[in-house]
Amino acid sequence: MQNELTYPDWIAVDWGTSNLRVWAMTADGEVLAQNGSDQGMSGLLPDEFEVTLLSHIAPWLGNDHIPVVACGMVGARQGWDEAPYRAVPTTPLGGLHTVACRDSRISMHILPGLKQERSADVMRGEETQIAGFLADNPDFDGILCLPGTHTKWAHISAGEVVSFQTFMTGELFDLLSRESVLRHSIGEGKAIDQEAFAGAIADTISRPEAVATQLFKIRAVDLLHGADASVSRARLSGLLLGLELAAARPYWLGQSVALIGASALNALYEKALLAQGVTPSVHDVDTTTLKGLFAAYKDHV
Amino acid sequence: MQNELTYPDWIAVDWGTSNLRVWAMTADGEVLAQNGSDQGMSGLLPDEFEVTLLSHIAPWLGNDHIPVVACGMVGARQGWDEAPYRAVPTTPLGGLHTVACRDSRISMHILPGLKQERSADVMRGEETQIAGFLADNPDFDGILCLPGTHTKWAHISAGEVVSFQTFMTGELFDLLSRESVLRHSIGEGKAIDQEAFAGAIADTISRPEAVATQLFKIRAVDLLHGADASVSRARLSGLLLGLELAAARPYWLGQSVALIGASALNALYEKALLAQGVTPSVHDVDTTTLKGLFAAYKDHV
Repeated sequence: MQNELTYPDWIAVDWGTSNLRVWAMTADGEVLAQNGSDQGMSGLLPDEFEVTLLSHIAPWLGNDHIPVVACGMVGARQGWDEAPYRAVPTTPLGGLHTVACRDSRISMHILPGLKQERSADVMRGEETQIAGFLADNPDFDGILCLPGTHTKWAHISAGEVVSFQTFMTGELFDLLSRESVLRHSIGEGKAIDQEAFAGAIADTISRPEAVATQLFKIRAVDLLHGADASVSRARLSGLLLGLELAAARPYWLGQSVALIGASALNALYEKALLAQGVTPSVHDVDTTTLKGLFAAYKDHV
Repeated sequence: MQNELTYPDWIAVDWGTSNLRVWAMTADGEVLAQNGSDQGMSGLLPDEFEVTLLSHIAPWLGNDHIPVVACGMVGARQGWDEAPYRAVPTTPLGGLHTVACRDSRISMHILPGLKQERSADVMRGEETQIAGFLADNPDFDGILCLPGTHTKWAHISAGEVVSFQTFMTGELFDLLSRESVLRHSIGEGKAIDQEAFAGAIADTISRPEAVATQLFKIRAVDLLHGADASVSRARLSGLLLGLELAAARPYWLGQSVALIGASALNALYEKALLAQGVTPSVHDVDTTTLKGLFAAYKDHV
């Protein structure tokens, strides 16, 4: 990059709780370079935000002023500067929250999250993914499912987010598999037994409350009969995802569903939805995020 | 104790994952002295078990040999020595697992846990509480609920444990309140708003799957409108306990129920059951454990 003497027109930033990713962009949305690290918001003090960002984008800065467009926890109350939530129903994009920087070479523009007053809920970061998806699919009418630590299900119509719901399924899986008594049976691998996963989904969809007693059975079965870690992991994953699908049924039943997530999570959700007779389209979250940041740059900077 | 020149006839030990409690006992079940610490099984290496026990009971040891009767995780695979599970249906007590000690002044007798092959489940420690309860209530026919990190519901008939089910409700509450995003709203206090607790129980009992989306709302309500920590804590506790009660319904519906737990947990379960039209009797877990150890001493040493 430095040798090409091409400076970017703007810089895209996805700054979450645990990761920071940056892209050097042209005005046309082309990626010139990218960088990233695990320097997420949660590990930084307020004093360190700007200097951390600069350390990731320094080679891309010339003498000209350059706008930075950022999404994610960077705009949370505990982030760099709070970008107040916008209330649904609304378009995923609508203005940017501009933050003063000490370094005059950059200006910082943060995408606000969305909030839902009735049936209280919030999102921060996913609105950018939704904007990126709608940039490619402007006439989409249906449901977006954005799997992650806190999975979001959003009802999209006429270019607006009508309503959404958050599920802590990913965080529950992480806590139970790493910190609870189940960790002894689940281990640290990644493999998921497909048959056990499908069985657990079916168990919880048909009888959601059973998840409360099925969880400990993962450990009990292993203690009494021995169980492969990939089976125990699949049971946990399937029980929790089945509970989510049972609660999110009004969102997906008979609807057009698109998944936007990392590939491993997309695959789990796709398999689970297919078993319910729903065939989702599948989209990569990194691509979608970058498209959303580009849409925000085009419309609002 | 040392000045009284009265040595105990036996020593009772409740040795769990996080705590060790010991009592100097007479042959009639009278407590001469007690001691305890946080030196639970999980913090000790196998080499340290006997020396840790001795450090807690040393003042009670004379020249005579003295039996030690112990329950809890001390008999787990990762404990001092595995006391194999006994299969239900069975009486809560039935023989002791004797372990060789290096110190000839003591002999170690561990109560086996119980296992259930069909609908796999295990308990270790609660069988002693059940035995203590049955010592006082030999004709009890109904349901025992033993609230804790892993709450057990047990069907008791004719002096036997017929079946039981384990719920990880306590561990889920600990993980979610201390480690998840909800910790920002729940804080470190203990207070529980009674109205919010009752509301959350009712919500989950009537629609168990909703717990999956109600969890994150605890955080969203606080972010959007502000919420007292005692209300957020009550919501989390009520949602999780409501899910347990929904799944355990076949155990408590129209049954005679007795609670055996610590007072704060007993109070939560009692309130939740009363709202379902069930009036449980309430029993202290420490008293009941000691009675169970005494029953094991009388019958099997």
